[in-house]
Order: sequence, then C-alpha cells, then structure tokens
Amino acid sequence: MPERIGKYTVSFSNRPTVLGYAAVAGKKEGEGPLARYFDAIFEDTTMGEKTWEKSESALQREAFSRSLDKAGYTPSQINYIFCGDLLNQSIASTFGLREFKVPLFGQFGACSTMAQTMAMSAVFIDSGAADTCAAITSSHFCSAERQFRTPLIYGGQRPPSAQWTATAAGCAILGLAGNGVRVAAVCGGRVNDLGINDINNMGAAMAPAAADTIANFLTDTQTKPEDYDLILTGDLSQIGTDLLYDLLERQQIDIRAAHNDCGLMLYDRESQDVHAGGSGCGCSAAVVCSWLLSKMEKGELNNVLFIGTGALMSPTSSQQGETVPGIAHLVHLVKK
Amino acid sequence: MPERIGKYTVSFSNRPTVLGYAAVAGKKEGEGPLARYFDAIFEDTTMGEKTWEKSESALQREAFSRSLDKAGYTPSQINYIFCGDLLNQSIASTFGLREFKVPLFGQFGACSTMAQTMAMSAVFIDSGAADTCAAITSSHFCSAERQFRTPLIYGGQRPPSAQWTATAAGCAILGLAGNGVRVAAVCGGRVNDLGINDINNMGAAMAPAAADTIANFLTDTQTKPEDYDLILTGDLSQIGTDLLYDLLERQQIDIRAAHNDCGLMLYDRESQDVHAGGSGCGCSAAVVCSWLLSKMEKGELNNVLFIGTGALMSPTSSQQGETVPGIAHLVHLVKK
Repeated sequence: MPERIGKYTVSFSNRPTVLGYAAVAGKKEGEGPLARYFDAIFEDTTMGEKTWEKSESALQREAFSRSLDKAGYTPSQINYIFCGDLLNQSIASTFGLREFKVPLFGQFGACSTMAQTMAMSAVFIDSGAADTCAAITSSHFCSAERQFRTPLIYGGQRPPSAQWTATAAGCAILGLAGNGVRVAAVCGGRVNDLGINDINNMGAAMAPAAADTIANFLTDTQTKPEDYDLILTGDLSQIGTDLLYDLLERQQIDIRAAHNDCGLMLYDRESQDVHAGGSGCGCSAAVVCSWLLSKMEKGELNNVLFIGTGALMSPTSSQQGETVPGIAHLVHLVKK
Repeated sequence: MPERIGKYTVSFSNRPTVLGYAAVAGKKEGEGPLARYFDAIFEDTTMGEKTWEKSESALQREAFSRSLDKAGYTPSQINYIFCGDLLNQSIASTFGLREFKVPLFGQFGACSTMAQTMAMSAVFIDSGAADTCAAITSSHFCSAERQFRTPLIYGGQRPPSAQWTATAAGCAILGLAGNGVRVAAVCGGRVNDLGINDINNMGAAMAPAAADTIANFLTDTQTKPEDYDLILTGDLSQIGTDLLYDLLERQQIDIRAAHNDCGLMLYDRESQDVHAGGSGCGCSAAVVCSWLLSKMEKGELNNVLFIGTGALMSPTSSQQGETVPGIAHLVHLVKK
C-alpha cells in the first residue's frame, strides 16, 4: 500500500510493475543516438494526417497500441489511462485516445507529464484503485512550434538557449503482475519560480523545480545521490543541467556522477542542430519508454530516479509579462 | 482502502472526508439563486488584476485560502493540490496557486475537472498516499470568451443553445478527520463522441458521456436512481439535460425525479439571459462547494451522485473540423 515517507514522498509496498512500454519517434529523433531503442520511427512526421495536431494524436495511438501489444493486453483490460500533452486543452491525448473507450484522466504537468502519469498510475495500482493503468504522453515539434512560438513557415531564428521539441510519444502499461521494472516511490513537485522570463530558456526555468524535488526526495528517504545508478532529469538540457548542479551544490548535494538528462540524450547536439538539447513531453517519454526501461529490464540499471521537469507557462502568460514557473515530479524505479 | 467494484467504479472503505470547502463567485453569479451560499461575491470581476487570466488565478487563490481557513488548515499541511481549469496550459491554476508551495498535480477534464480533482484526492487519501488534499478549479467568463470564442469587445451574438461560462472557483479540502461529508466511491469516465460539432451546443456534446458514466456506475454498484437523494450533473444545462434523460431512458434508466444540473441551478434562466444555462469548470465547482456540501453537512441531502461533465474540444480542434468529445467523472458523496 502507499505509505508517506517524510514530507513529500510516497513509497509503494506492492511496487507497481511495468508490464509493457513503447516509444515512437519522428525522423529527426530516429537519426539520434537512441534510434535503435525506439519501437517505430516515422520518416513522415505528418503520420498521414492533415494537421500537426492530428499527427501528434496518431503518435499517442501508436505508443498506446504498441505498449499494449508488448504487454499482451487489450484496451478493455486497462482500468484508467493517465495522459497529457502540451497542446491547448490536451487535444493530442483526448482525440488520440478517444477510440479506445478506456476511462481517462487528463494530466497536465507540461514536460513533466510522463513522470506525473507514471506517479498517478502507481498510486492507483498500489492502492487497489486499479489493476492496470496506462501512462502516456507526447509532443510534436510542428504542433508545439505553431502553438508556443511561431508558425514553421515564418522561419524564426532560435537562440542558443532554445531547446528542440521532440516529435515522439511514450507509453508505459503498469500493473501488478510479472517480474519487470517496478515503481518504488514517487515524490510530487511544487511550483518553483525564480523569475526566469525568457521563454527561449526553459532549462533555466525548470532547474529550480528539479533541484527542489530531488533535494526533498533525498531528505525524505535519507538517501544520497551515490545510492542510485542513475538520476535522470526530463529535459533540462545543457543550460538547465548546469544550473541544477549549481543549485544542488548549495545544499551540499552533488549528483554529477550519477546524472544524465533526457534532453541531452535524445539528440546528438554536435551534429543535429538542437541548440541546448531536446524538450517537450515526448522527449522524456521517449527516453524513459525505450532506452531507460530496456536497460533496467536487462539489469544494466537497477535503481533509478526519473525526474520529469515542466515549464508551466503559456503564450498568454508570457505575453502578459509573467515569469516561467517550473515543476518537477520524481519517480523512483527499481529492478531486482 | 480503495476497492474496485464492477468494471469502472472504485469504492473507499476509509471514506475520505470533506474537511472544509469554499466557493467564490462573480457579480452575475452573485445575482443568481445560490448567492447566499457563496463565501464571497466579487462585484468587480477583474479582482483588481490587469488581465482576465490573472483575475481567474485570483479566484483560485481566494477559494483555496477560504477553504483552508474553514478547515482550520495551513497550506503546508496540504500534501497535494489537484487543480485545473479551462485556460491553455492551465495557467489559472498554476499561476494562481504557485505561491503556496504545495506539491501540485495539474488535472484536465474540461468542465468535469471539479469531479476529477475530488476523485484523485479521494484515491490518494483513502489509500494513504496523502493525509490531506485540495481539489480546486475555476472558470472566468471573460478569459473563457476570449480564448474559446470571440473577444468581449467583438460583441458576438450567442445562440439559444449556448451556455454562460461561470465566473467562479470552488475548493474542497479532503482528509480523514472529522464527521463531514464523505466520498464513498468514484467512477472514472470514458471519452464519448457522438459527432456533435456545434461548439455552441456543449450540453449536447457532454450528455452522452454523462449517460455512459451514470449507467456504468449504477451497473457496477447494482443501485437505482431512486436510491439517491440527488443526481447532480455538472453543466449539461437545458439541452444537455433533456438529451441525458433520453439517452438513459433507452437503457431503461429514469433519473428525472432525482436529477438536477449545476448549469440550471447557478443562474435564474428567466431573468439572467444565460440561454441554455451555466457552464465552465467554476460552475459545478461553485454549486458543489457551496450549496451541495452545505445541504449535505446539515443532513438535508445524504446520498448524492455528482457527475462532472466536460467538453474536450479546443478552438484548434474545432477549426480543424473535429467533433466535440465529452467526458464525465462521477463522485458518490454520503453524509451519515
């Protein structure tokens, strides 16, 4: 059963298990260093749809269907879907998944959504509120650029601090059966706002939230960074990662030896012109639901903290002069 | 502990309790039939803020602060906030609540969000994942009109099927202490889409989802409409209510005698020019967190089904020719 540990953390005695997982990605992601881990790479990122929003919905359908297949489940065996994305009113998720007729709770944590959907699934399963849940999220470079920045056709220049929104979706099916990767604990994040107002520097906006959640979890569990094989943040990319190290160091926490970031892993920054790195809900979803879970399944990594990081602004809030608050949710994954 | 009943329903043996609740509303809502139940009525719906989005954030802060006061809790005693709203990237919630530094999980269920946040809170509390949670949502007529329809200054005509987005917020603090109203069960809703594509007829778009969830819950629990003092839907208003009766009648379910709808209760449709009735996340939030919970606290209503209803479109999806899918989540409330 879920049990509260310290002020922010919940541990799971039944340890909800990953029954299946899948990640699908676009052409650019398929040219990156993690390509061989993806379940499908779509050279045509329209996915045969007439709009980018419908393309992103198609990515969600692909990720959900493929992870169900790998788990050996049908949609009707899933009690709840926890899903979300970056689009206004989460239309990538709701339109993408409506045909499956599974009860659905929309989640919004910006780019932290993969961690949030896994956390919700874990609480529901560990407590008996559900037998099986799906945690799923997506992003699409073209739908995100149009909505948050400028239409693609405008050809806006990107500053070096900008990140590249991943065209990808990831899904994990969680339940109680089997011998797979398990969720040992989650730590819910608080909104952190240090006054960053540059919407082309999301990494800096999210780093304080990541530092806050990591420090809270280590305090709650009385553990140290060296206790973990990997501390994997969502999509801080280069600038956010450097800031995270600085912020944690002020609290005498050094995660450098164990840390990596999905935004730094998804692309080859030397050759792929992504500036500070990757971002978008689909970035951490694709890295977690391919590379990470397969490494853990094989026992190459056994004790991992995944910290999804999100920037909570909208174009409206930024136009109104608001800062960019960040949030980060942590999922502790184990394989033993 | 949470226990699954039938295919869609979760019941709670510890029965999470409403420790405090508050509803705040705007001028028009304060001229309606439920005015005396509200904790505050703001004649100036700018709330002293420079933009309507910031005004809506202020409504959320007011609802959260007042419900905490009534429960006798401070923000630091709340383990998680479950919150959401209709604005792009849920900025009313995230910006409105950031200052409280409480871990926060953003929820998106369109106008079903009040029921969804209560459902999440109940699962977390009943299972031990949390001791206290806040369930909170809002809407604001002016921020919603600007985002979903036309700027106010445009003065667009509203057809008779249109609903009036409530300027209101509601919050319920849930925990395990005390002798208050309890959450006995929840039933998660599926996306239902019968092909409605008129964005000025949300009631029709949401009615199939409400019918689906009500029928699922009654089947799962082997109960009948007459077992309940009240079956309260979120904001179907007049057209949606009539459709709901028809859809349920096809399954030999007649809820007429026990049914009411928050969208029909919030305004006086004769004198207040709201056409089909009220809508918006804040509509059901304000009715539930004032009239309903106070009636239940006094024992005037003891066994109530609250079904939040949401229309899952965005302006983008509608412009792309999409239909309007609906969703409905059910919360079973008891006082005994």
